Amino acid sequence: MTAAADLFRQRGYRAATLDDIARAVGVSKPTLYGYFRSKEELLAAIFHRAMSLFERDLDAIRTSGDDPVTKLRRVIRFHVGAVIAERSFLAVFFSEEANLPPRLSRAIRRRKARYDRTVRAIVEAGVRKGTLKTTNPRLLVFAMLGMSNWLYQWYDPAGEWDADTIAAGFIALLESGYLATPRTRQRDVAETLGRIERELAGLAPLIRGPGRRRR
Amino acid sequence: MTAAADLFRQRGYRAATLDDIARAVGVSKPTLYGYFRSKEELLAAIFHRAMSLFERDLDAIRTSGDDPVTKLRRVIRFHVGAVIAERSFLAVFFSEEANLPPRLSRAIRRRKARYDRTVRAIVEAGVRKGTLKTTNPRLLVFAMLGMSNWLYQWYDPAGEWDADTIAAGFIALLESGYLATPRTRQRDVAETLGRIERELAGLAPLIRGPGRRRR
Repeated sequence: MTAAADLFRQRGYRAATLDDIARAVGVSKPTLYGYFRSKEELLAAIFHRAMSLFERDLDAIRTSGDDPVTKLRRVIRFHVGAVIAERSFLAVFFSEEANLPPRLSRAIRRRKARYDRTVRAIVEAGVRKGTLKTTNPRLLVFAMLGMSNWLYQWYDPAGEWDADTIAAGFIALLESGYLATPRTRQRDVAETLGRIERELAGLAPLIRGPGRRRR
Repeated sequence: MTAAADLFRQRGYRAATLDDIARAVGVSKPTLYGYFRSKEELLAAIFHRAMSLFERDLDAIRTSGDDPVTKLRRVIRFHVGAVIAERSFLAVFFSEEANLPPRLSRAIRRRKARYDRTVRAIVEAGVRKGTLKTTNPRLLVFAMLGMSNWLYQWYDPAGEWDADTIAAGFIALLESGYLATPRTRQRDVAETLGRIERELAGLAPLIRGPGRRRR
């Protein structure tokens, strides 16, 4: 399946043949037929594998007792890690859906939609709890999965970043955004207030006088 | 070119033929040859068109006198709008690079890298000015262009959202993130102020002394 995914990715699904795949794996075509009766079946298997991979981890996160913010962090970390680890499978998954037989294509679309809905339910739970803010949970999910999926286009395994670095960068951006102002201003206000409080606390004993204690 | 992009998108570049394209446009193959001498030349033209489209608008933003935060907003708006308007071209652009002749593929990669660098320079200018925050400008650019590019996969022209709605959602998320903490911090500030008020109210009678009234 990995060899087939690599070949589909390099040449495109339609141009690659079962002969090419058998040659890449170093088996005879009859041996390959023992596993997959057609190229289409191989493509279907790649789609199922890619989808199952995502579903299994998401399910573990969904049913955990974590709060929504932690759950979203876990979703980003595992999604980024999976896209990086399974680039060949996902390149096929993201570009060859038009070549699936219609029934399978519909099934895959349903599973993708369910995946999106599950992540959206986490976002909505966070909004209800007051720990997450968004006016459009569905768009937020598309944005966050989109930036993670896009890794299959640009990620360079020989580059400087590993999955953890990328996930940490995405989490920081998604949680707090890139604007410096609101946060900086609020920090200034909070620091000023802290100084006032300490100033007042220092004044109180002076006013009360040395011999008196506050009850 | 649009007909070719649609066909390449639907069938894949390798499977589509010049005959198919001539038929889709309703011209003879010799007429088509008058414009493009080969399928490869047609693919190259699609890549150039997609790239030029992005470069022209980005250049106008880069050379404008806007501050970095406004420039990034403009980048997101035009990038989202372009991906939505030119979905067929971009689907080919994002999935058929392997089919370009090596020299053209290198040229496109250089232009893509220059595009990323231009957006990154805007981010870095904002960080220097103190209006933007990020520890990794390059990753921020990949994230923000990634969520925008991903639209070519999920955008439904018959759906409820237009380009402006999506761009506004992306801008809100990228600028401020999804954590509700800023609001939480405001609550902290309000609580601190409440403590200071109570502290002051407690101090007032001590300062005034027992028998005196404030005028």
